[in-house]
Amino acid sequence: MAQYFILLIISALISIALAFGPAPLQDFCVADPTSTARGNRVLACKNPTLVQATDFFFSGLQSPGNTTNPYGASIIPVTVATLPGLNTLGISIARLDLAPNGVIPPHLHPRGSEILTVLEGSLQVGFVTSNPGYNHFNKTLQAGDVFVVPVGLVHYQFNAGSGNTVVIAALNSESPGIIAIPTAIFGAKPDIGSDYLATTFQLDKKIVDQLLAKF
Amino acid sequence: MAQYFILLIISALISIALAFGPAPLQDFCVADPTSTARGNRVLACKNPTLVQATDFFFSGLQSPGNTTNPYGASIIPVTVATLPGLNTLGISIARLDLAPNGVIPPHLHPRGSEILTVLEGSLQVGFVTSNPGYNHFNKTLQAGDVFVVPVGLVHYQFNAGSGNTVVIAALNSESPGIIAIPTAIFGAKPDIGSDYLATTFQLDKKIVDQLLAKF
Amino acid sequence: MAQYFILLIISALISIALAFGPAPLQDFCVADPTSTARGNRVLACKNPTLVQATDFFFSGLQSPGNTTNPYGASIIPVTVATLPGLNTLGISIARLDLAPNGVIPPHLHPRGSEILTVLEGSLQVGFVTSNPGYNHFNKTLQAGDVFVVPVGLVHYQFNAGSGNTVVIAALNSESPGIIAIPTAIFGAKPDIGSDYLATTFQLDKKIVDQLLAKF
Amino acid sequence: MAQYFILLIISALISIALAFGPAPLQDFCVADPTSTARGNRVLACKNPTLVQATDFFFSGLQSPGNTTNPYGASIIPVTVATLPGLNTLGISIARLDLAPNGVIPPHLHPRGSEILTVLEGSLQVGFVTSNPGYNHFNKTLQAGDVFVVPVGLVHYQFNAGSGNTVVIAALNSESPGIIAIPTAIFGAKPDIGSDYLATTFQLDKKIVDQLLAKF
Amino acid sequence: MAQYFILLIISALISIALAFGPAPLQDFCVADPTSTARGNRVLACKNPTLVQATDFFFSGLQSPGNTTNPYGASIIPVTVATLPGLNTLGISIARLDLAPNGVIPPHLHPRGSEILTVLEGSLQVGFVTSNPGYNHFNKTLQAGDVFVVPVGLVHYQFNAGSGNTVVIAALNSESPGIIAIPTAIFGAKPDIGSDYLATTFQLDKKIVDQLLAKF
Amino acid sequence: MAQYFILLIISALISIALAFGPAPLQDFCVADPTSTARGNRVLACKNPTLVQATDFFFSGLQSPGNTTNPYGASIIPVTVATLPGLNTLGISIARLDLAPNGVIPPHLHPRGSEILTVLEGSLQVGFVTSNPGYNHFNKTLQAGDVFVVPVGLVHYQFNAGSGNTVVIAALNSESPGIIAIPTAIFGAKPDIGSDYLATTFQLDKKIVDQLLAKF
Repeated sequence: MAQYFILLIISALISIALAFGPAPLQDFCVADPTSTARGNRVLACKNPTLVQATDFFFSGLQSPGNTTNPYGASIIPVTVATLPGLNTLGISIARLDLAPNGVIPPHLHPRGSEILTVLEGSLQVGFVTSNPGYNHFNKTLQAGDVFVVPVGLVHYQFNAGSGNTVVIAALNSESPGIIAIPTAIFGAKPDIGSDYLATTFQLDKKIVDQLLAKF
Repeated sequence: MAQYFILLIISALISIALAFGPAPLQDFCVADPTSTARGNRVLACKNPTLVQATDFFFSGLQSPGNTTNPYGASIIPVTVATLPGLNTLGISIARLDLAPNGVIPPHLHPRGSEILTVLEGSLQVGFVTSNPGYNHFNKTLQAGDVFVVPVGLVHYQFNAGSGNTVVIAALNSESPGIIAIPTAIFGAKPDIGSDYLATTFQLDKKIVDQLLAKF
Repeated sequence: MAQYFILLIISALISIALAFGPAPLQDFCVADPTSTARGNRVLACKNPTLVQATDFFFSGLQSPGNTTNPYGASIIPVTVATLPGLNTLGISIARLDLAPNGVIPPHLHPRGSEILTVLEGSLQVGFVTSNPGYNHFNKTLQAGDVFVVPVGLVHYQFNAGSGNTVVIAALNSESPGIIAIPTAIFGAKPDIGSDYLATTFQLDKKIVDQLLAKF
Repeated sequence: MAQYFILLIISALISIALAFGPAPLQDFCVADPTSTARGNRVLACKNPTLVQATDFFFSGLQSPGNTTNPYGASIIPVTVATLPGLNTLGISIARLDLAPNGVIPPHLHPRGSEILTVLEGSLQVGFVTSNPGYNHFNKTLQAGDVFVVPVGLVHYQFNAGSGNTVVIAALNSESPGIIAIPTAIFGAKPDIGSDYLATTFQLDKKIVDQLLAKF
Repeated sequence: MAQYFILLIISALISIALAFGPAPLQDFCVADPTSTARGNRVLACKNPTLVQATDFFFSGLQSPGNTTNPYGASIIPVTVATLPGLNTLGISIARLDLAPNGVIPPHLHPRGSEILTVLEGSLQVGFVTSNPGYNHFNKTLQAGDVFVVPVGLVHYQFNAGSGNTVVIAALNSESPGIIAIPTAIFGAKPDIGSDYLATTFQLDKKIVDQLLAKF
Repeated sequence: MAQYFILLIISALISIALAFGPAPLQDFCVADPTSTARGNRVLACKNPTLVQATDFFFSGLQSPGNTTNPYGASIIPVTVATLPGLNTLGISIARLDLAPNGVIPPHLHPRGSEILTVLEGSLQVGFVTSNPGYNHFNKTLQAGDVFVVPVGLVHYQFNAGSGNTVVIAALNSESPGIIAIPTAIFGAKPDIGSDYLATTFQLDKKIVDQLLAKF
């Protein structure tokens, strides 16, 4: 009997089949890796008849990322770039690992708010509001604690504890973007002028030149 | 010197201080528990000068929820209702615990896509597309696996493994809503008519009456 | 051969002139049936210079749909699939016909609120709110009565009267989607597991198997 | 058993009851007629515990509107102003009646696209695109025909037939707005300067003065 | 050391390079003049690796536009049509020049609010609200004055002063659209019927015919 | 006492008549300086019957701002804080004055793209894209030149010329926000920890402490 209900609707949809080929399926828009089209800030949709469960699946958060680097930290992002089914859905996650003294540099996400959950260890987290307040809200999180960072605000994380820290961070964009402040300022390609940077950061120009070389 | 930059801008903002009292701070809008105002589907903003780091903080996901119930499952949501800083930010999370054979009934979120990460154990998860396809995409997840469910689609989870399952689910709404299908159909208050339900579900009316009593 | 190179450049310049000379016409974006592009959940726009009044026109709501089926009901949707000019405009309508005792199964529209107007006969209509209330709001409508169903909520319609019922329903999406609950649960392809359904609907597994066969 | 599922979620929501009183119900936001608050272009929400089915209901489209006026036409709008449940839902409808030779002056809706369905009689309808094309798309509709007018474009309707015309028009805003061009130009309060209007409409100033008196 | 931070993230992005070629760059979407694709009301994005600073640059507002025309006015728009980097960014500007007695006919922008700043001379500006008020708000502006016109409302500008007037107008759309009322009514192609226009504007049909010929 | 009951009902009806009688005027929502309500990130609307032309008007951009400060620069913003009619309209402007060698520190607007027009003098302007590119796009602008900075990206301006520079900048938000990077990093209140900053900026801790004191 269900097929009758479907038929009721399908009968009126037959002209689609004629006009559009496969009827538009708009429950989702899995990113099509074979397309070179660049639409309205989203990736083109994969033909829905070719979509499979694996398009909504990603494996790889079971093990810690490699933290043997100068930051003592690792980020494993799961965005539309690695999970095509996220395309247009407005959400992504990441696993963060921080060794003792590990740091994630001050940064912001231009396109997403972030909700953090600590799974293991502890985490120092804080964010700074915009002009004119520049108020600094911060908190030490333990396993099971949750903290939220509003979209577009500068924030930071570090592990002041003695053990490893594991965090799941979710953001409300499939491509939230990251602007790491030290890199955006001192690692832009080509460099921002060192006179300008020395003036606005009130730093000796020699130090600015060192930073421009480091980042 | 920074204060000069701030002064540059503040000087033009002095009329705000006169007109609006505390200048509007729009980096966030923490839900105000003392307000009875009901705005455009969001809660009124707390006075920004009273906002503290704890407004962005929630503690309580460190321990398993209680699964000693007929479903063998527990959901601990972290939405704007328990984390006021989430107000207007468009994100929330939840911890799911499922004992062996634990089930979460078929349901949907009218206001949010969901990204699931399995922390422990395994999880059967699936969703069904809309008319006319009603295609069923499903997957068995292990610890470290991620799966995404598009907004508004019926989906389900159960634990077919022999151990406990722990999941972090993030949704892109601070109040995504839950419509549990069995309850919406057979547990609405007051009941939907049993003749109508018997016809549309092709069930004996006696069975429908039993379901109406159970849910 | 040099002249070919010049021609190549000129032809490229002409396409700019064509694309930008007459300013892009963005009053509408009629769906292009000849395009296979799948953009940001919308269909590609037809070349605006080829658009005609008929692109905004649909004929076919003057006569009742065929209600000689087990549901005693007919739905004639007018969405972007049959009226290409609706593309991107965020609206659609449908004509519903219900014979006496005709039913439309419980369903929801993930992408649209619905406003119903009864043209002839009477209509029982109701919707159920989300967790935790599951409140059931319902009403009997006569000709000239209007009722609105919020986006994403389960709702139903049936004709308890002795005559035919005719309804115009408008939704605020050009492709609002339909999730018929009985079909999504018992008619998904492939089937959702019967053990899981029996548990969550508190139905005997034999009855679940019968439903899986029927839908 | 359903109550257990509800309990699972409610248990975590108890703190809302403490903090917010009645838990926020965000499936809808019925306009509260007793509130004087004016929010973000929407009306404040009625206390959800007081909401009833009649809040989603309007009666009054069964009979023709009164067309014994100089325009020979009547519009019965059903917007949030008369159907409070439409608040925030983004949809509205109207019944149009046009006697033979009845006209609706050229107008536009700044906040909504319009889909028209002719129920009885015939209708001349057309719209004009924006600069620089000013292309005029028009069509004669019979009963059962549908036509769509994109948001923000000047359009018009008249009844060139010999019988009465009845139309249902749906718009994708609960408050789409109407700008009747003759009134906006010649009936603004206070008047737009007649010298300016004479120049820009290329009309004799005496005629402009007559129009300013008429509208 | 900065390269380590980048490496942290890039390592997880390598699969993008494989799957998508150049990683999607979504900070902007410069309009691609070589593309014929017409997406969701926006132009296709230029390959981000080919984007240059000049894509965000426009030169040409230093000199007055030519006002030796019947209106005594000139508009130099800077929209996505002439500044491709504006694509998707939701903003545009224009330079207006008005000779003494220069006029800009009554018009509206369906897709943008407008903020005007007078640089030289003076400007009469006004707008009219929608039905049923049709309230006329107007103001005489001098150099340094600012005025805002809400989206979709009929507005006008003229220079009643004795010198030239220069204005910068910004609108919150990269393609806000212009509907000049006299042209939309009397210059539509093909004409709107003169009987209809004579009735609705309460003008002699002969005068309407003259207007149809002029515009 | 019965008459009180009747009066109560009548008074309720009157408030409906007041609220709904004159249809809600939603062409604009002028910010109400007397309201303490904080809605969905916007200010409450002023009673529309009290709105005047001056609510859409601001005067004060005719003269240069004061640049006798360490930055050699001045910003005069015209946002909803000083022009209440901008509320909800999504646009604002500012006048920038830069003396020779004047600088505006690196900053970003979390809620708005910016289009700059140079009125006098010349301007060095540049922005940096997000991770992983950190590409630096920059340009020297002369009077009459226009440049656009996408929302959320770090950008900067300085005057390398020998004369004063005057700029009009428009942003597509009535409250776009400013995050000045040096202040957000070294001027947050309370300070971000100096150990953390020294590590992530690769600066000597003594220098960090100096910066924390300066900003």
